[in-house]
Amino acid sequence: MLKLYWADESGLPAGDRGLAYGDGLFETIRMKGRQGVLLGRHVERMVRDAGRLAIPVTRQELISVCRQAADRFGAGPDDQGWVLKLTLTRGTGGRGYRPEPTAQPNLLVAASGLPPIPSPEGVWADFSPVKLTVNPLLAGIKSLNRLEQVMAARDLTDDRFEMLMLDSEGQLVEGTRTNLLVRFDQGWVTPPRTSLAVAGVLREWLLEQLRSRGETVAERPLAVSDVVGPDCRGLFLLNSVLGVVPVRGVADHELPVYSGLATIFDLNELLE
Amino acid sequence: MLKLYWADESGLPAGDRGLAYGDGLFETIRMKGRQGVLLGRHVERMVRDAGRLAIPVTRQELISVCRQAADRFGAGPDDQGWVLKLTLTRGTGGRGYRPEPTAQPNLLVAASGLPPIPSPEGVWADFSPVKLTVNPLLAGIKSLNRLEQVMAARDLTDDRFEMLMLDSEGQLVEGTRTNLLVRFDQGWVTPPRTSLAVAGVLREWLLEQLRSRGETVAERPLAVSDVVGPDCRGLFLLNSVLGVVPVRGVADHELPVYSGLATIFDLNELLE
Repeated sequence: MLKLYWADESGLPAGDRGLAYGDGLFETIRMKGRQGVLLGRHVERMVRDAGRLAIPVTRQELISVCRQAADRFGAGPDDQGWVLKLTLTRGTGGRGYRPEPTAQPNLLVAASGLPPIPSPEGVWADFSPVKLTVNPLLAGIKSLNRLEQVMAARDLTDDRFEMLMLDSEGQLVEGTRTNLLVRFDQGWVTPPRTSLAVAGVLREWLLEQLRSRGETVAERPLAVSDVVGPDCRGLFLLNSVLGVVPVRGVADHELPVYSGLATIFDLNELLE
Repeated sequence: MLKLYWADESGLPAGDRGLAYGDGLFETIRMKGRQGVLLGRHVERMVRDAGRLAIPVTRQELISVCRQAADRFGAGPDDQGWVLKLTLTRGTGGRGYRPEPTAQPNLLVAASGLPPIPSPEGVWADFSPVKLTVNPLLAGIKSLNRLEQVMAARDLTDDRFEMLMLDSEGQLVEGTRTNLLVRFDQGWVTPPRTSLAVAGVLREWLLEQLRSRGETVAERPLAVSDVVGPDCRGLFLLNSVLGVVPVRGVADHELPVYSGLATIFDLNELLE
């Protein structure tokens, strides 16, 4: 049974394990009025990954909270959109790191404005000096352990939209807040799900879309040379709040901007 | 300039980055009355590692907070001891992971009772199936990103005091809440500081003590076979609240209990 906190009223209790150890996970959902982009997938991911962390929550509980949040924050008829953030923690208690098996999870619900949405003409990115380390047990989970992303994001500027992060073997994994998709003549390539720090819902949806249209999609490790080399036809950053963002250049390499994703760019068609 | 929160009055604000991303670090200090075990080293570690995360805090600020905490919680003349926990975060604000360079840190101060102190006759431990991944940029920092330790600690029981964690190459790194020290005939061995998730203050102090007594101390990777093999004369778990804890057995291997650390066991001699 969840204990619900509204961020416009209070934070979580001082003893919450989310603060103490990053013992929890979160979702950020792009909303328009009372609807959310890929809302069902966000809820499903949180239920699934909470299960991997042994934090009990049900789809019904989260759907009910999203409805309450929509009533509370999404009432305006002509709003430009907003962001719903759900932060689910294991709650309080336990003996140090060791959790109480019967702990009651806490859920913090927050609303904020949309971030600046990048131009469809594309953005510049760079390679981060901060390495990404991914524990197989936690791979893909949007957990509250995001210090590597914070340290990498310190290098973002208004002109440098994203920092691309490599693992300790030098493979490209993802951006601080985006998954990667690369276009080659042979088809699409994205790093495999098991290597990801965060497996995004837009990535998952987009891969399904591309496959259902008969396009070739390979999940395999990506080298830096794949992206800055002559065979790259386009690099895209995927984020369910920001959408599909084409990259015009990385570090000092200009990249071609591939136009073949334009027909499935519109996040407003994914409201549910 | 720190913003101070007392855990017996309130938690941190809902937008705190410590909860959102584990963007912060903590210290737990064993106190007796108004004094703390290795208090100066705890404060120095927090200042140093906050600097590595670019969270501004000074030694003077933390010493002042420790004094206020001692006044507040450590007044009783015959208390058995207590634990002071300092949780320092980057504060609120920023654009997603990207921090605001001028963010004002938050410091949450909490007191709790001493945990059960293990018998000097030793404890049993086991090997954790949860791998430890250590980013070189964050190595040793007692950050709020501790989900691996939480997942490993789920296997602790009243009879299994600690889970020993291995890195992805199978080297022994540390326990969920303890550093490791192994006795061989040739001297002492402990995993190198640069490989550690958390570089404990008791470890640091004890290595200095051993070296100042002319004992041989090597910092090198430890294999499982080093610990369960015939050359191991003793394995110790180091934690500044719990002290130096001898290990009687790991998994189904009994270990010899080396008595040569007994003269520097008493944490009460380290109050300052």
